[in-house]
Formats: sequence, C-alpha cells, structure tokens
Amino acid sequence: MADTWLTTLHTDTPQEGFELAITLSRRGVKYTQPDAEVLHKLRPEYSTNADSLIAASQVVALNFQTVAAANNYWRK
Amino acid sequence: MADTWLTTLHTDTPQEGFELAITLSRRGVKYTQPDAEVLHKLRPEYSTNADSLIAASQVVALNFQTVAAANNYWRK
Amino acid sequence: MADTWLTTLHTDTPQEGFELAITLSRRGVKYTQPDAEVLHKLRPEYSTNADSLIAASQVVALNFQTVAAANNYWRK
Amino acid sequence: MADTWLTTLHTDTPQEGFELAITLSRRGVKYTQPDAEVLHKLRPEYSTNADSLIAASQVVALNFQTVAAANNYWRK
Amino acid sequence: MADTWLTTLHTDTPQEGFELAITLSRRGVKYTQPDAEVLHKLRPEYSTNADSLIAASQVVALNFQTVAAANNYWRK
Amino acid sequence: MADTWLTTLHTDTPQEGFELAITLSRRGVKYTQPDAEVLHKLRPEYSTNADSLIAASQVVALNFQTVAAANNYWRK
Repeated sequence: MADTWLTTLHTDTPQEGFELAITLSRRGVKYTQPDAEVLHKLRPEYSTNADSLIAASQVVALNFQTVAAANNYWRK
Repeated sequence: MADTWLTTLHTDTPQEGFELAITLSRRGVKYTQPDAEVLHKLRPEYSTNADSLIAASQVVALNFQTVAAANNYWRK
Repeated sequence: MADTWLTTLHTDTPQEGFELAITLSRRGVKYTQPDAEVLHKLRPEYSTNADSLIAASQVVALNFQTVAAANNYWRK
Repeated sequence: MADTWLTTLHTDTPQEGFELAITLSRRGVKYTQPDAEVLHKLRPEYSTNADSLIAASQVVALNFQTVAAANNYWRK
Repeated sequence: MADTWLTTLHTDTPQEGFELAITLSRRGVKYTQPDAEVLHKLRPEYSTNADSLIAASQVVALNFQTVAAANNYWRK
Repeated sequence: MADTWLTTLHTDTPQEGFELAITLSRRGVKYTQPDAEVLHKLRPEYSTNADSLIAASQVVALNFQTVAAANNYWRK
C-alpha cells in the first residue's frame, strides 16, 4: 500500500485509542483483500452474523492491547 | 461515533474493571454493526449458543487483560 | 450485576489463581447470558463437545495469564 | 477439585515448562468436564481432527506464554 | 527454508511495523504449506470469505503486538 | 515424551526464533497426538485448507511472541 495511514500509536484519549484499534483491525483485513468493492459486498454477511461480530471484536481487543500499552494506558 | 464513552481505563476495583472489559467488548461489536435493532435481533441466537458465549467470554478475557494491566492489577 | 464477586486478583497459590481464572471465564459467559436456567440447558452440549471444551480452556488460559501476572507469578 | 496439582509455575528447563503448559491446558478442559470417561470418549474425535489439534496447540501456546514469563524465559 | 527473510524486528515507523506483521503472518502460513501454487489456489476462497479475513486480521494483530513491543511502540 | 527437544529459548536471529516458534507449535500438536502416522494422514487436509492454515499461523504468532520476548526482541 502506497498511502501513509499510520504514523504513530499515540492518542490523546483511550477512546481515540480504541478507534485506532478499529482502524488497525480493518487494515489487517484490507492488506489481505485490497478490493474495496469485494469488502463492501461481504459487509451484509458478517455485520449480521453474531459469530463474525464477536470475532471482529476479538481482533479489536488484540489491537487495543497494543495501542493501550503504547500509550502507557493513558495513566496520568 | 460521536458520543464520548471511554475517558479512562482506571477503575476502583477489579470487578468494575471486569465490567469495563464487558463494555469494551460490546463496543467492539457496535463499531462494526452500529444498528442497535440488528444487534437486538441477533441476541437470541448468540445468547443461547454455547460456542458463541465462549467466544464472547474470550473477548472479555482479552479486554480484561488490558484493563487489569492499566490498573496495575489493583495491587495495594 | 448487583452482587460483589471480585474484590482482588491476589491468590495465595497458583492453583487458586487457576481456579479464579475459571471463575472469570464463567462470569464472562454469565454477563452475556445471565439466565442460569438457559446456561444449565447448554451444559450437556458444550461439555461433551471436544471443540467447545478446547475453546473453554483457551478462555481460562487467557484469564490465567492475567491472574498470574497480577500475582507476579507467585515467585518467592 | 480437592486435589493439589499446581504448587508452582517454576520449572528447571523450558521443556518442563512446555509440559506444564500442556498440563494447564488439560486442566482447563477438566474443570469444565470433570468426568474422565466422557473425556476419554472424546479423544478419538479431536485427536484425529486437524483443526482440533491446532486449537489445542493454541491453548498450549497461551499457557506456555504464562509459564515462560513466570520463569523469566529461563535466561541465564 | 534456506532463504534469509527476517534479520530484525526493528522498523522506522509503525506502518512499516504493521507491514512486517503482515509478512510474519504470511510466513507462518508458508512454513506449513510451502507450495506457492497451492497457496495461490486457496486465495479466491479466503479472500472473499468474511470469517477468513477476520481470522487473518487476528493473526496480523498478534504479530503486530510483537513488532510493536520490539520497537518500544515507536515512542519518541 | 522422553526425548529432549527444548533446552533454551535463546536464538541468534529473529528468523531462527520464528523457526523455533514453528517447532513449538508442532510440538503442541504432537503432545496431543503423538502418532506420527496419524499426523501424516491429516496433512493433506489442513495444508490445503485456508482456515486451517490461518489457524496454524495464529499458533505460530503466539509462540513467536514468547520466543521474541525471551530474546528481548533481538535488540542490539
């Protein structure tokens, strides 16, 4: 992928960190299937399937572990 | 998502931390499927399926790892 | 859940820590399906299915990672 | 379970640590299904199924992470 | 495998780290199935299946945890 | 298992570490199914199935986390 989409793991708040974890999870998919149209067609399938949604949430949880550690858990 | 729902990973007790892990797990689903009605319709399916419940518990376990580390395991 | 069931991650021995990990795994299920009767009915299904048992053991392993770290691995 | 089976996470060698990870993985199953006869009957099923074996290896990998950290990776 | 493909986990940016995580995930597959032609034939199957794509993204997330830690999260 | 196959988690390079992670993943399978002939028969099945290969790569990723940490990420 030629575009720059990830320059830092730092975020100001845990919520922004969680949203970065979402981005990382989607990018993980996109590197395997770069065709946006194919991904779009798959959406109705996984977004209405409980097990797919739980699996997606698991990937987010893993990436949030990384982002949270990178931000030292936003401790003050 | 426009609303603010996560301002800190700090909780006073491990149980509150576990409940935050539940929240994080549900939010991970909600970012993928924001339609509350769709999610509501899926509930009878996954909440009565053993494998779905185990998978959900796995996501909670991952998020609890993050929250517990953020709170230094509530050590005194 | 109104009851208090988790006040500390500290345990005296690794075995008690492992048993706490079991408790955490079950609670992860219970937050998603609080109806004890429904859970009871699912038991014959998952407790005699090898893949479900392996998945359950995986959740325990994740929670044991957390509990073990919280107890500094019971090092002396 | 009344018996004592886990008094320490310390092992002398990484291989013993790996074998302890096997034990932890099996115990995770046994807490959910304590009936040895039921487990015995399931054996032919999962031990000849590639996906079950890979899933079992995954649980071992998670528990080995814990045991390895507990032993400071057997560094000298 | 005779070729040298991994000499360091260091990368200059998080994005390069994420791309290294992709490489590690693919190599994990390739060690199990070294035949490039077989892998090529499988591509249409998993790259158009939502659950396979989510599973692939999960492996990337795990490897990104490793690469990110190795780079101390690219903190400045 | 009577043979000695794991005396250290130290490796000189990340690639050797990755290959050790492969070994650990295979051993995790072998402890559950020690019969080499049975394993050999399963090979055509999982090595041509995308989801099995992704699952295998996930186990490798988990073990590589352990080996990489043990080697302090081969930092210089």
